[in-house]
Amino acid sequence: MRQHLTSITVRTVGQNLYEFTDQITRWTSGTGIRRGLLTVFVRHTSASLLIQENADPDVRRDLLAFLRRLIPEGDPLYIHTLEGPDDMPAHVKAALTSTSLSIPVEDGLPVLGTWQGVYLFEHRQSPHTRKVALHLIGE
Amino acid sequence: MRQHLTSITVRTVGQNLYEFTDQITRWTSGTGIRRGLLTVFVRHTSASLLIQENADPDVRRDLLAFLRRLIPEGDPLYIHTLEGPDDMPAHVKAALTSTSLSIPVEDGLPVLGTWQGVYLFEHRQSPHTRKVALHLIGE
Amino acid sequence: MRQHLTSITVRTVGQNLYEFTDQITRWTSGTGIRRGLLTVFVRHTSASLLIQENADPDVRRDLLAFLRRLIPEGDPLYIHTLEGPDDMPAHVKAALTSTSLSIPVEDGLPVLGTWQGVYLFEHRQSPHTRKVALHLIGE
Repeated sequence: MRQHLTSITVRTVGQNLYEFTDQITRWTSGTGIRRGLLTVFVRHTSASLLIQENADPDVRRDLLAFLRRLIPEGDPLYIHTLEGPDDMPAHVKAALTSTSLSIPVEDGLPVLGTWQGVYLFEHRQSPHTRKVALHLIGE
Repeated sequence: MRQHLTSITVRTVGQNLYEFTDQITRWTSGTGIRRGLLTVFVRHTSASLLIQENADPDVRRDLLAFLRRLIPEGDPLYIHTLEGPDDMPAHVKAALTSTSLSIPVEDGLPVLGTWQGVYLFEHRQSPHTRKVALHLIGE
Repeated sequence: MRQHLTSITVRTVGQNLYEFTDQITRWTSGTGIRRGLLTVFVRHTSASLLIQENADPDVRRDLLAFLRRLIPEGDPLYIHTLEGPDDMPAHVKAALTSTSLSIPVEDGLPVLGTWQGVYLFEHRQSPHTRKVALHLIGE
């Protein structure tokens, strides 16, 4: 049994879902581990992780629209507004989605379903470079 | 240290929470691993995983009712409607719950609390056979 | 490769976010494992886990306020009301946040981002002693 750990970055230019399945898959198969457990961890509190359909882009558009309506910017409820109207909604969106994902690995690849893609979910409007840690243990 | 990986299916007949704690527990104890880490991963984007109370069934009924009201079908917000009025709400519900669960194992069993059950959360109305990957590492 | 497993408790006195990053960090570094995978698992269904900003306390205040408004107590939708008006909202809040967290470990410490703290998210009003399992595998 052995393990690998790396840190990758995902560049974002506004609120959106950024797929990085390929980056994860390439790194996983490059380690030579055939069977194991892959962990994806985002090191931020205003961006998150999501596994979602990667076929029809309308699914992502609708998901973003739903969350934007559910968690609107400029909500008078918030006290934490110094970092901009999109900051506190970003923290709420991150809280309601995921900071870490755990995906079993078989035959050197994450066992994602046919339509599953792994996304960095950016909740801020301004460009960011998001750090994601990848850990793989197996043999 | 060793690991095991398997794929199980959960048959669903409509939007509901389907408990499969027993399936997970039996498989875990059958591997002979006494201490370790169990990962549960659902390979779909319109079904998800949830650990919830398995005592009073009203908890599940109320949780389903809350999500149905929060994320209604036929919402004019959605563009992705070709697969039916329950499809886009299914993706949103999956995004707000979990795709993977990580549960430590002690004495050959997942360390679930007294009232915790593991559920496949089906968000579609029509019957489905859902694939769930189970990974266990330990000794 | 080796592993460690422990159970810790977090005492709560009402609906709030209770940071226990230090407890996790101390235990992790105490095991002597330098690189690995840390799993945090809460053994309850009316409390959950959250990684959120630990700089400005207003972020937590606003997050609590948002969830309280989104998932109000005394909602006539609920049937499960015997355990008090905060019980069913507690289950919903737990369902929308996390039961388990997976955090890679490097140099003997969880690779948390600069502003990330690990919180026990208490959704009940009365005092509770919450059990959290910590599992670490690595070398």
